[in-house]
Amino acid sequence: MSLDRLEKQIAFIKEIDKAKSIFRRNRLLDNSRYENDAEHSWHIAIMAAILVEHANEPNLDIGRVILMVLIHDLVEIGVGDTFIYDEAARATKVEQERESAERVFGMLPEGQRDHLRALWEEFEAKETSEARFAGALDRLQPLIHNASTEGHAWKKHGVTRRQVESVNSRIANGSESLWTFAKGLIAGAVKNGHLEE
Amino acid sequence: MSLDRLEKQIAFIKEIDKAKSIFRRNRLLDNSRYENDAEHSWHIAIMAAILVEHANEPNLDIGRVILMVLIHDLVEIGVGDTFIYDEAARATKVEQERESAERVFGMLPEGQRDHLRALWEEFEAKETSEARFAGALDRLQPLIHNASTEGHAWKKHGVTRRQVESVNSRIANGSESLWTFAKGLIAGAVKNGHLEE
Repeated sequence: MSLDRLEKQIAFIKEIDKAKSIFRRNRLLDNSRYENDAEHSWHIAIMAAILVEHANEPNLDIGRVILMVLIHDLVEIGVGDTFIYDEAARATKVEQERESAERVFGMLPEGQRDHLRALWEEFEAKETSEARFAGALDRLQPLIHNASTEGHAWKKHGVTRRQVESVNSRIANGSESLWTFAKGLIAGAVKNGHLEE
Repeated sequence: MSLDRLEKQIAFIKEIDKAKSIFRRNRLLDNSRYENDAEHSWHIAIMAAILVEHANEPNLDIGRVILMVLIHDLVEIGVGDTFIYDEAARATKVEQERESAERVFGMLPEGQRDHLRALWEEFEAKETSEARFAGALDRLQPLIHNASTEGHAWKKHGVTRRQVESVNSRIANGSESLWTFAKGLIAGAVKNGHLEE
């Protein structure tokens, strides 16, 4: 065992503990509090394993999807979460997140550093089947949470049906079936008065 | 797409949100609060990917390890976390956790139900390389957290060095290298007065 490699790995493992304190805009399903990045990533990793049969591409590498979603939000360490409906903030965060990726993944030893950094870039680019399915889950999970907590984040931030449909229509790029399901959730939220028409 | 299958999968995905409210005995590294099962499972899933080169068995199926650690604590839904140093509680929890596994994994459609249930049984039995490595990570992570938060859980529950060494020596079954590292953490904690000799 290389002690130097292990030391770097442990430093990285300690650093990513901070993702547990980065809070998102959506609530837990019991509405008790906001969800953090670590919990969100855990949830969509299990969703990936369970929902893979609904992916558009039947032969995607599910192991790569799972690792991708586990690490996709680590760039928010030191930068914070960006609300999916805040387009202006999203535009300015791109460069900050790239620097954060450089720093966080740069803590890892050779090989792993480039591997995880590339996996994050792949997630961001959405050009592979794996990234498109991972992206679909990353949108679907908060949609389920908002729909199940009376539209908490939508109401609080004045988000409309058109915005929800526009942002989440990209679910279809990873899974047409899950987008059909998501449209049902959105229609239900409008009907129940949890989302503005 | 089978609507019936998707409905069951979504019900399961919603059910496991409860793992985010099951709190463990160890603190986050910044000592701000206790850690929950979902965060812990996310953390050791990334640890699995990063630390696999230190596993005793070089050819283990890392994808299976990652899925195993992601779901290993779902049986605590409705049952709660059992402190690793509380031997009496651990003995009585076995049957409750088995019933919980039946219920939680039983929410999934055919195939997935048996697959995840078997993966949890495999984790519990520690008879495969994958389960032994997963078990090593499940012990190492709270050890790192306790050692980094002045021995919070050890002090609070009067845990001694002998108990910590006894419970965690099983790390060696998954990784001799990580057990060597863990012994260093334990010795350091004793030296710093965070763990009773």
